[in-house]
Order: sequence, then C-alpha cells, then structure tokens
Amino acid sequence: MKQVKIGLIGFGTVGTGVVHGLQVNRKHIADTTGFDITIKTIADIDIKTDRGLDIGSTALTQDYHDIANDSEIEIVAQLVGGIDTANDIMMYLLKHGKKIVTANKALLAYKGPELFMTARQYKSSIAFEASTAGGIPIISVLRDGLGGNSIHSIYGIVNGTSNYILSQMTEYNYPYEKALNEARKKGYAEEDPSLDVNGDDAAHKLILLTAIGFRSVVSMDDIHIEGITKINQTDINFARELGYTVKSLAVGILRENGLELRIHPTLLPREHPLASVKGVFNAVCVRDNLAGETMFYGKGAGSYPTASAVIADIIETASGSYGPKFANLCYFSDNGSPSVIPFSETISKFYTRITAKDIPGVVARITSIFSDNNISIASMIQKESTGSEAGIEFMTHKCREADFQNAVQEIKKLDFVIDPPAFIRALDVGFESVG
Amino acid sequence: MKQVKIGLIGFGTVGTGVVHGLQVNRKHIADTTGFDITIKTIADIDIKTDRGLDIGSTALTQDYHDIANDSEIEIVAQLVGGIDTANDIMMYLLKHGKKIVTANKALLAYKGPELFMTARQYKSSIAFEASTAGGIPIISVLRDGLGGNSIHSIYGIVNGTSNYILSQMTEYNYPYEKALNEARKKGYAEEDPSLDVNGDDAAHKLILLTAIGFRSVVSMDDIHIEGITKINQTDINFARELGYTVKSLAVGILRENGLELRIHPTLLPREHPLASVKGVFNAVCVRDNLAGETMFYGKGAGSYPTASAVIADIIETASGSYGPKFANLCYFSDNGSPSVIPFSETISKFYTRITAKDIPGVVARITSIFSDNNISIASMIQKESTGSEAGIEFMTHKCREADFQNAVQEIKKLDFVIDPPAFIRALDVGFESVG
Repeated sequence: MKQVKIGLIGFGTVGTGVVHGLQVNRKHIADTTGFDITIKTIADIDIKTDRGLDIGSTALTQDYHDIANDSEIEIVAQLVGGIDTANDIMMYLLKHGKKIVTANKALLAYKGPELFMTARQYKSSIAFEASTAGGIPIISVLRDGLGGNSIHSIYGIVNGTSNYILSQMTEYNYPYEKALNEARKKGYAEEDPSLDVNGDDAAHKLILLTAIGFRSVVSMDDIHIEGITKINQTDINFARELGYTVKSLAVGILRENGLELRIHPTLLPREHPLASVKGVFNAVCVRDNLAGETMFYGKGAGSYPTASAVIADIIETASGSYGPKFANLCYFSDNGSPSVIPFSETISKFYTRITAKDIPGVVARITSIFSDNNISIASMIQKESTGSEAGIEFMTHKCREADFQNAVQEIKKLDFVIDPPAFIRALDVGFESVG
Repeated sequence: MKQVKIGLIGFGTVGTGVVHGLQVNRKHIADTTGFDITIKTIADIDIKTDRGLDIGSTALTQDYHDIANDSEIEIVAQLVGGIDTANDIMMYLLKHGKKIVTANKALLAYKGPELFMTARQYKSSIAFEASTAGGIPIISVLRDGLGGNSIHSIYGIVNGTSNYILSQMTEYNYPYEKALNEARKKGYAEEDPSLDVNGDDAAHKLILLTAIGFRSVVSMDDIHIEGITKINQTDINFARELGYTVKSLAVGILRENGLELRIHPTLLPREHPLASVKGVFNAVCVRDNLAGETMFYGKGAGSYPTASAVIADIIETASGSYGPKFANLCYFSDNGSPSVIPFSETISKFYTRITAKDIPGVVARITSIFSDNNISIASMIQKESTGSEAGIEFMTHKCREADFQNAVQEIKKLDFVIDPPAFIRALDVGFESVG
C-alpha cells in the first residue's frame, strides 16, 4: 500500500468536503487504487471555527508555507478562492515542486496561461476537474473519454443558481425577484448573486471548457456575456406556448471561420435533453465527429460534489496517470488553435416579440425589414389584439447576429412600434433525436 | 512528435470506424496530445471486401501473428467479436507484450479474470472503454472521474435495440413484432436479435460495470436476466396512465447485505432523466456518496461512437497514463469486494395488474394476501368493470422479491382470478430532484 500524504489549503466549504470525503472513503480508495491517502496538513487563516470534523493527527496551520516547504508532501489541494492571493499561493507551490489540484475556476480563467507555463517549467502539474460543473467529470471526459474526437460544440447549463431561478420562474410562474429570494433561502444563491446571475461565473467555466475542448486560450473579453436578470415571465410564457424552455447556456461552437463563445438565455425545444435539467443540476452537451452527441449531468456545485472532483484529481495525480497527460496535452498554450469570431458574426435563430399599434401594414413593414436584413421568418404568431395594441411574435431561421440587431434598430424606429422588440436566441445546434 | 504505430485486428464495422476515425482526426490528435498515431497493419480473415477507405501504406494481412510478432507495434486494437477465437488472439497478444484495446464485451464478461491476470503477469494492459455503452465514456467516468467515490448504484439503458423497440411501442403504440421489424429495417436489430432483446447483451455490460464500479467479479449466473419480449402494449399503456415509462434497465445496487444485479423491464417515473432517453441512445445513472446522482448519455453502439472509445483508449495507452491505472486498480480480481445477493432477496416496488371476476370480496382477499406477505400497497386503481370482469392495478411499496412472488402464487390460485397477475418492477432508487 503506497502512503500518500497531501496538503490542503483553504478549509472552507469545499475543503471541508474534501477532508470528510477522504475520511469516509479512505478504505474504499485504498482497496480500489492501492493508495492510502491522508491529509498531513491543512492551512487556513481561520483555524478556530469548528467544521464539525475530527481531523485526528492532521496538523492545522495558518501559514501555507508550512505545506509548501514540507518535503513529505507532494500533492496539494489548493482550495483558496479569489484571484490574487490564490495566484501567489499557486505560484509558490509550483516553484516548490508541488503538484496542485484546484477548484478555483476564476483563477484559471484569468491566470491559466501563466500558471500552466510555470507548472510545465517546474515539471509539476495542475489538475482542475473541480473547477467546472462540480460532480460532473466533464474535464476528464473532454480530455480523455472523448480525447481523440474533434469537438464541434460544447454547450450546457453550468450555473446552478441561474438554472434554479429560471426553473422556479418556469414551473411556478414566479417573478425573477421571488425566485431569487427562494434561491437565497435554500442556500443556492449568495447574498450578492451578481457573479452567478450576470453570467460571469458561467463565462469562467466556458474559458476552461474552451481550453480543453477546443485548445484555445481565450479571455472574458472573447465571450459575449448576458445574464438572466432581464428575463421575465412574459418571455417564459411565450416560449412555453411555442414549445420551448428558457435556459441560461454557456455555448462554444466551432464554425468554419472560428469559435463562437457566449453566455445567454437560450430557447431550447422542450424535448431537448437540457430542457429537463431542473433546479441546481448542471448538464453539458458535447457534439463531436465520432461519438456524436453526448450529455453529462449532475450536481454542479456544493461541498461533496466538488470534493468528488478534487479527490478524483488527487488520485489521478498520485497514481502517476495525470503527469504525462498534463505534460502532453497543450492546455492554455495556443498552437494553431481556432480564434474567436466577433459576436456580431455569430449565427443564431431568434425569437422576438414586438408590440405595435393595431393598424394596417404593420406586419408587411416589419417582415420587409427582416427580409432586407437577410433574415427569413420560420414562424409568426399574431394574437387577437386587445384594444389598439397588437403583439406579434416571430421565430427566425438562423441568421447573423449583426443582421438581426440591425433589423431590431430599424423596427424600433417605426412610429407604430410601441415596445422595442424583445428577443431570445435559440441554438442552431440540434441534438439528434434517433427513433 | 512521438510516432505511435498500432496494429488492428478485426476489420469489421468497428474496425472500419477506428481506421477512418484515426485518419480524419490524425492531425487533431497530434496537435492535442503530441502523438502521431497511425495503423501499421490490419489483420482480418476477409482482406478482399472494399471498406470504402483508402488505407494508404497500412499493410493488410490474414494472419494476426504478423501483428503480434511485430516488435515495432506496441498497442493493438483487438476488435474480433465472439469468445473462443478472440480469447486465443488476446492471450497470444498479451504473451507477446502487446498492450490491448478492445471492444469485445462478451469476451471480457466470460473471460475477464483470466485475461486480466495474464495482462498483469506480462506487464501489459487491457483497455475496454468501447465494451460498454459505445460513445459514452462510462468506464473512464467510473474509474477516474468518480474514482474516489463509493458507488451506491449504477443503472441505465445499455442496449439500444431494446430501447428502440420499447420507444416505438411507447410512442406509436406499435406491437412488439412491428417495433422489432422497424428496428431491423433501420439496422438497429440483427436478423436474430436474441442477444439484445433477451437481456444477455445488457448483462455482459453489467458484468463490466460491476467490475469497475463495485470491484466485484461476477458471472452471468449472478444476474437475474429478463428481456423485453414479454412486454405488451397493455403494460405500456397502464404504465403511462400511472405516470410511468417502461424501460429495459441494467441495475446494480449495493445493499447492506451485498450486490443486487439484474436486467429487466422497469417502470420509471416520467420525470426521471432516463425516461426521456429514446431510440437507440444509451444512458447510465450513477449514485455515489460524494457526487450524488450523475447521468451519462450518448450513442451506445455504431461504428463511429464505438471507434470514439477505442481511439480514446489508444491515446490513454500510448501516453503512458493507462499503464499505472491498470496496474493499480483491481479490475476482475476479488479482494473483499461485495458478494451478490440472491435475486429472491432483492428489493423492488411492483406494479401489478390482476383481472378477476367482478364479485364482492375480491379486493379484500387480494389485499389480505399482499399484507400476509409483508407487502404494503402504495396505490390501487380499479376501473369500472366491463361486463363480468374487473381489472385491478396495484403499485406496492418496496418489498422482497420472494414475498412478492409468493403473493403472486397465492393470488393465482384464487378461483375468481381470471388472468394470473402481470407485473413490472419499479426501482426503489430515486433520482433526487432538486428545486
């Protein structure tokens, strides 16, 4: 039995899950893998708070250097959040030869290239399964399980908070604020939920998925990011009538002219497997040229699901399997990988809703603006007008973002238009349904 | 760039997919992994048939020894089906130091322990992602992604032919024979579909999932196997009325007293993620003590999805990542792993339908038989009788298989019972629905 003594930095929610998970599964892991994994030292600024765990002979320290300078420790679970301090810790660990397992997505999203270069330079490694979609092993799936396949698209629900809010709005017809408060009460949303609901957290994850799936180093500026805060019940109800569900998706699509990267509320046909992913669950769809469509589903956050990913990475690192992968695979190092195309050049289908005065010629004018902008209409609904206003809905065929936005500007200027056109994008990437 | 020259034995459907997949993705794989993978030699009895591929400078031979004895070839994709010949080839390859990647599930199900022992003895390895659920990387998910977690249950749809037939019966109300013929026409069922529809193919896969997920070496005799041939439209329609969908599942559950292993038609609540897996798609749900519930979805068969798994294994083997895993993980070697509990001791919920004469006291007698056998009733529907017959449906709470079968025998003997009770099991393993 090989003894593996690790260090752990950051004894918060995820850290506590990792410590407890390794305790509970210690014998199981030893029986399965031949490694007896124990935590020699835990570092955290707060070493007073009772985490409800008996940590036995594990040392507690406020100084992470105690771990970095301990030659008996080869692997460190680095679970400190945020960017600057976490980056300093990571750099120090790498320069002291430690192999790192981390859950910090924001750090890798902003500092990935430098950190990975340093890790390679010091013959170390950084494993980061826990950084994306918690308990779903999507990083290893893209890297290993689908590792020989050319990826066409990766898209999915990678923020549980947003998905919980949209699920509540859809199922119980709650307004946004009520759904958000519900999420707060259940512990699914922070007091300040900005990072989750504005799409930034999903964008961090998309940067990592892009690094693995498309081998492209991208930054937040490369991604069009729209949160869920502007979605209202009217949108959701209209979508339902048309057979769609509104989900906030992270989307990466490799087109002939480059990569499309975006986070935005998206219409999904009700029978799409992602449409039934509810509450705080996450799910990622992948489409590639050999396996075709695959989907990976599970809990995207929380102490134990994230600990599951951290522990898997610790085992892979300890077994010597991860080293060659990290050395060979070119994460975060551009080598002829596809570049990102401007958002204005991306392709979507659009659902749009226009409120106009109920006078003759309205539909003719609007449709001719669409047509002048190379947009063809897939379907149109005009409901019986209430009083002097008419609500008209269109579903377009796929078209360029710039063309659609141009049409919106022109329609806005029409004197009979009461509300500017509201719209939600729909993917043009289908999920093949066999049978 | 490291050159990797491999051998391939068995130039059938999967072999052709592997050859074509490696051609199409050669540059992609090289850019991503640093390995230039080419096929040096292909062996097949039939070297005449045109596979529609230009194999360039790859040699074709009828004699697999040409590959086994070629010292330049380190890795062999062994894609010959069946058991005896395939076993001879595998043994010969292992004894000549070749590392093997295989898609042959039946072979591993029957000869796994010997083959794995031999591989260890000769410091070789056998990778077998392609043996289970085609394009879904479920083997590496269980081994690596969820590798530190104690698995509670693995259950899913692992036979696309059965799932296609049941999907057609459910969606279009086709009788079994018509759905089977449809499957034949589309190439989803063999002319003799026995292995698929009688549950044996699913059982082969369950043996492999059990070896990885529960570390237990089991044989076909340890698995209760029921196919889909007895399912009729009445069952499917009744299930629908109760909010259920009928799916053929492979189920492994670790109970306190051991492992439950079974293949049978199963009722799933309509909102369960597996219920919407249609056509030839496969999906496997896993429940463990850290990640909780996860699901993995994709195409379970076919030339390219299976090639995806073969190619992933070739890369893992070539990179040196798979060697330490194979050496450390105790596949197919019992070491205190859980034993299988007899089917009579397994726990299910049961849907049952009884046709009886419409006379007073029928329900009282039947329910007292259930109660005498420790079975409590969760719900009951009795429809208005047509003429002199009454159809009564029960859904039980969970109970022992033996108790339920005993109750069935007693109910059968009642003189007012017209048709013996028909029944379908439902899982007592829930899929947590958050939100």
